[in-house]
Amino acid sequence: MTAFAAPTDDILFSLRHVAGADQLADWDDALASDILAHFAHFAEQVLAPLNAVGDSQHARLENGRVRMPDGFTAAYTQLAEGGWQGLTAPEEAGGMGASALIGAGVSEVFSGANHAMQMVCNLVPGAIKTLLKFGSKAQQDQWIPKLVAGDALSTMCLTEPQAGSDLSAIRCKAEPSGDGWQITGEKIFISGGDQDMSSDILHLVLARSGGAGLGGLSLFLCPAQSGVVVTRLEEKMGLHASPTCQMRFDQARGELIGIEGEGLNAMFTLMNHARLDVALQGVAHAARASQIARAYAAERIQGRKPDKSPAYLHDHADVQRMLDAQQRLVIGARAMCHIALMALERGDDPAVCDFLTPLCKIFGSKAGIEAADLGIQILGGYGYLDEYGLSQTWRDARICAIYEGANGIHARTIATRGLRAGGGADGFAALIAELGAGSPRIADLLSDWQQMRETMTRIADPLPHAHAFAQQTADLFFAASWVRIAAVAAHHGSPDMLYRLAQPIISPQDIAAS
Amino acid sequence: MTAFAAPTDDILFSLRHVAGADQLADWDDALASDILAHFAHFAEQVLAPLNAVGDSQHARLENGRVRMPDGFTAAYTQLAEGGWQGLTAPEEAGGMGASALIGAGVSEVFSGANHAMQMVCNLVPGAIKTLLKFGSKAQQDQWIPKLVAGDALSTMCLTEPQAGSDLSAIRCKAEPSGDGWQITGEKIFISGGDQDMSSDILHLVLARSGGAGLGGLSLFLCPAQSGVVVTRLEEKMGLHASPTCQMRFDQARGELIGIEGEGLNAMFTLMNHARLDVALQGVAHAARASQIARAYAAERIQGRKPDKSPAYLHDHADVQRMLDAQQRLVIGARAMCHIALMALERGDDPAVCDFLTPLCKIFGSKAGIEAADLGIQILGGYGYLDEYGLSQTWRDARICAIYEGANGIHARTIATRGLRAGGGADGFAALIAELGAGSPRIADLLSDWQQMRETMTRIADPLPHAHAFAQQTADLFFAASWVRIAAVAAHHGSPDMLYRLAQPIISPQDIAAS
Repeated sequence: MTAFAAPTDDILFSLRHVAGADQLADWDDALASDILAHFAHFAEQVLAPLNAVGDSQHARLENGRVRMPDGFTAAYTQLAEGGWQGLTAPEEAGGMGASALIGAGVSEVFSGANHAMQMVCNLVPGAIKTLLKFGSKAQQDQWIPKLVAGDALSTMCLTEPQAGSDLSAIRCKAEPSGDGWQITGEKIFISGGDQDMSSDILHLVLARSGGAGLGGLSLFLCPAQSGVVVTRLEEKMGLHASPTCQMRFDQARGELIGIEGEGLNAMFTLMNHARLDVALQGVAHAARASQIARAYAAERIQGRKPDKSPAYLHDHADVQRMLDAQQRLVIGARAMCHIALMALERGDDPAVCDFLTPLCKIFGSKAGIEAADLGIQILGGYGYLDEYGLSQTWRDARICAIYEGANGIHARTIATRGLRAGGGADGFAALIAELGAGSPRIADLLSDWQQMRETMTRIADPLPHAHAFAQQTADLFFAASWVRIAAVAAHHGSPDMLYRLAQPIISPQDIAAS
Repeated sequence: MTAFAAPTDDILFSLRHVAGADQLADWDDALASDILAHFAHFAEQVLAPLNAVGDSQHARLENGRVRMPDGFTAAYTQLAEGGWQGLTAPEEAGGMGASALIGAGVSEVFSGANHAMQMVCNLVPGAIKTLLKFGSKAQQDQWIPKLVAGDALSTMCLTEPQAGSDLSAIRCKAEPSGDGWQITGEKIFISGGDQDMSSDILHLVLARSGGAGLGGLSLFLCPAQSGVVVTRLEEKMGLHASPTCQMRFDQARGELIGIEGEGLNAMFTLMNHARLDVALQGVAHAARASQIARAYAAERIQGRKPDKSPAYLHDHADVQRMLDAQQRLVIGARAMCHIALMALERGDDPAVCDFLTPLCKIFGSKAGIEAADLGIQILGGYGYLDEYGLSQTWRDARICAIYEGANGIHARTIATRGLRAGGGADGFAALIAELGAGSPRIADLLSDWQQMRETMTRIADPLPHAHAFAQQTADLFFAASWVRIAAVAAHHGSPDMLYRLAQPIISPQDIAAS
């Protein structure tokens, strides 16, 4: 299998020039390079070699505890000792205080090297943010240092057997008990619900403290050693090393986080972080699939060129088409995520962030799956074998369109909430106009989109068209991002390659104008 | 997991009315129903329950021999005793003499129940055809009765490590020896290269008896007990119960089939049969995925309807969209295969058959993969689990776009050979006009296609556009098939359901005209 090489330069190019991070007052270019280079080395040497091990060994449930595959615990210890779990945590809380943009770069590399392990480790930044925003001083003091140091990992306990996409159906019950709460009920699909890497686990649990509906839900923290039992591990298509747990909370000791009845709101902090992270997981898989396929296509001799000399696989037009399609997805989807993160960093328009997050989730997750699928096809019979790694890439990537809100749910959000007054659609249109400034193609696409948006708000039932509208919206964002990529390529990138990739999306005229 | 139910009625509807088999002089409607019903019962009771067993156990290589998963050998004995291996073999050779259309129906049911086992058994009809067409009387007398009775299974030994899509690079060597030949060399990706279900195995081997290039290749038959050794089993993403063998031929005893140097031509008989069979494997997976998803979506309660009462999953517009998309693929792709088989049965235009076969291979294989993917998405988190069966459906279906000629190779065939004088494109256009008679939409699409066809023959290098052209061609065939489906639905089918499915492809106007 082609060894994993972190796409550090591509990520930095995207952050700096495409998203424009270098225009932020507190952007430290040398520091960003340095952090990414360090993490890349660790990911290539330590995390990536465990990826296939995890796929074949699976996490296992033994005597009620989860055992991670060989090597995971030792690698986690190194990760924690390197301070990586506190990368984006504030310095006053013991973290490195790195920006979300650098965090995104590191997270993409982590997912590309070992998605299953990233999945278990990377709910921590969101948990820290949630505690900082909603937790009491005592809760923050007790948990944040442990999370930063890697002594504790965290989970997000939402789903129940009868409550998947519909959280209002949650039954898990929270009852006052002494100065705290007792949590009782069943949760399913809990990633990292148990593991043997960290000494402690912090469960963030959505449970019903009040009446029916979403307003009866509150958010609780629940330490692992308080009556929480793993009752089953799911056997999944992929992410075998990520233990997906069914959990029983049996009068487990809990503490309320934030205000009673406002659990969903508190959970959203965690969920929005997780959603952009899922989009980046998709980007990471796309990049990895592209890497494997390009290496193979440059080495494998098959057939002949028009002049009858032996051809490499990438000399065949149809293979080159697929290799280009992969790279187009990688670079464009990464740009979309970074542009969305910049909007988050600027913080001046929360509505546009809420609009961009589900778009990135939909497009990034699909990009990962599609690029992995193209990789399988490029390698042909070898792509179907386990040993070339594309099988795992596709199987691991596939979850991204399902978890953290199935893509259909996000499409609905864009087509309903997103189009209401103040819902972010105006900000989105302004962003597209800015990214695609000077491009006749983007002007046309934006005008089509505005018409469709108007139709969507006018018709009685927009839901049957939500998928198509979200797709059109994401495609527009992708195309506009490519105008930006082509524009900055002239100054900073590899213009020839990027211009070629941009071609099917935007015309040479658009590139010249950009 | 939803139990497998053979889509017998849908297959019969498609054969009879959509493809028009009931207009053939020798079509026996009662017999067709009877055969399909019998096989459906066997598939549901015996073959389907082994499908997940095969996926989890895998075929294994033990002491140089392949062991099939538990239950496969016993099921094969029943299959052979039922006479199913001789279904389409001529009665004078001991077969049932059923038409290729009935064979296609049975094959689809077999693949839907257990693709891996079908893969090992179903190269036999093509082998029998090859022997009947190119074999000597002695070869026919020796092998056809054994194949018909199920005492022997057969393989197709083409691929070598350096020769995948490019068969001209084959090195496996055939040298005259006594009154026969000796075969020496290595073959890879040989499905069913060994197994413990049949007492004998007949290898059909493409080997080099002459100089370089395709003209130096001849076809040989090579019994398993003649110096053929399995050196390795591949670990694959799917089709775990189908042993994919690396084989060493060590001065193995071979007999020439047909004329020396015309091996590729003889192999094409086998390959064309296999390609339509792969298209039907795709249809089978699409049908199975649709079946699982529909059953789940009709039972799973999630969220609420507009009137606030509990909703089933299929009450949600986006889920219904995906369920419809699956069924549209199933019914349309099946129709395409059956229409192509009817052209083969009529036998009056071989060029159009050569044009339709790669189209069906491309479209059918993609339909299977896409419908399985939609199924995973419909089930959400449960779709990602092994136990609901969609993981296996997708993983097994994925090979169809790769084997029997990767889809990119077939696209090239359509865009080059297919467009030459006498290449079948004219016959294809006539077929589309016939299927879509009266439909303004098809007339438009056909006119677009004729323009693109003209462009493709004019430009210096059509290869970079082969994929897009093949896609457009297949989509046109799919749309025209749906006009036919809508037309016959009025008389024979469930018109409301079929009209709804037809809608996004052809307009109500087209349906009214049809």
